Amino acid sequence: MAIILGIDPGSQKTGFGIISTLNGKNSYITSGVIRLPKGALPERLRIIAESVAELVELHGPTELSVEQVFLAKSADAALKLGQARGAAIVPCVLRGLEVSEYSARQIKQSVVGTGAADKAQVQHMVKALLKLPGAPQEDAADALAAALCHAHTREGLVRVVGATAIRRGRLR
Amino acid sequence: MAIILGIDPGSQKTGFGIISTLNGKNSYITSGVIRLPKGALPERLRIIAESVAELVELHGPTELSVEQVFLAKSADAALKLGQARGAAIVPCVLRGLEVSEYSARQIKQSVVGTGAADKAQVQHMVKALLKLPGAPQEDAADALAAALCHAHTREGLVRVVGATAIRRGRLR
Repeated sequence: MAIILGIDPGSQKTGFGIISTLNGKNSYITSGVIRLPKGALPERLRIIAESVAELVELHGPTELSVEQVFLAKSADAALKLGQARGAAIVPCVLRGLEVSEYSARQIKQSVVGTGAADKAQVQHMVKALLKLPGAPQEDAADALAAALCHAHTREGLVRVVGATAIRRGRLR
Repeated sequence: MAIILGIDPGSQKTGFGIISTLNGKNSYITSGVIRLPKGALPERLRIIAESVAELVELHGPTELSVEQVFLAKSADAALKLGQARGAAIVPCVLRGLEVSEYSARQIKQSVVGTGAADKAQVQHMVKALLKLPGAPQEDAADALAAALCHAHTREGLVRVVGATAIRRGRLR
C-alpha cells in the first residue's frame, strides 16, 4: 500500500488531498483547502509549509503528486504561484517524499478520460472514483485528482516493473 | 547585536551573505553561492532549503533580508524564481527569523548611494563596507548587499524607536 499526497498550490488557497492505493484500489483519506490570509508573504509561506508538514506527519504519505505549471497568467502571478509551490514542496522533500509532477492535461485525462475536462467534471469524477458522499471543494478536488493520477500512473509502472521482474526473475 | 542573513534567490544559483551589526558597525561573517544542479525541481528545492537551514543553524541569524522581485523576465522565469524564493524563505520563517523585503533599487541606494548602480559597483561597495580582501562573487555580493541594506534600515528604525521610547518613557 502507498499513501499519496496531492497538492494544488496557490498563493491564496492551496488544495490538498490524501489517498491510499493498494492493488489498483484507491481510498479517500482526507482533503481540504489551506486558506491563506492576505498580507505578508513570509507569513503565507510559513502557513503553507507548516500545514503541509503537519499533513505529512499526521498521515505519513510517501509520495507527493503536484500539478506542473506550464503557462501562468502573468509574470507576477507566476512568481506568487512559484513561491507557494516551493513552500509546499519543500517540507515534503525534506521528509523524503518522492515527488512526481503531472500536467493539468495528464491529470484530467487520467481522472475524467479527457484532457479538456472542466473543473466540475473533475469534481464529479473525484467524487465517483473515491465514493465520496459529496463533491469536494474545487481546489481539494484538483489535489485529489493529482493524487489519483499518480496512483493510476504508478499502478501502471508497478505492473510494468512487476512484469519485468517476473520476466527477468527466478519465475521465468 | 543582530546577525542578518541576506539571500539572493535564483533557480540556478542562490547567493547568501551573513553579517553582524552592532551600533551601526557591520561585520562580515560569511558569504557564498549555492549552485544548483540541472535537472529535477524537487531536488533543487531540497538543496536550497537544506543549505539555508544549515546556514541558519550554524550562524544563528535572527533576521532575513531578501530582494523583492517586481518584474521577472517571463512567466516561466518568474515561476522558477518564485519556487527558489519559497524554498529559501521557508526554512527561515520556520525557525522564527523576521523577514524583510527590499526592492533592488532600495538595496542599491542603501549600499552604493544610487538606485541605478550596476553589479560591479555593488560588488565594489560591499567589499569596501565590509573591509573584505577581495570582491565577493556577484550573487554573494547581492546577498550581502541585501543584508547591509537591512542593517542600515534597521539601524534607522532602532534609532527612531529608541528616540520615541525616550520621549514617551520615564526619562521625559
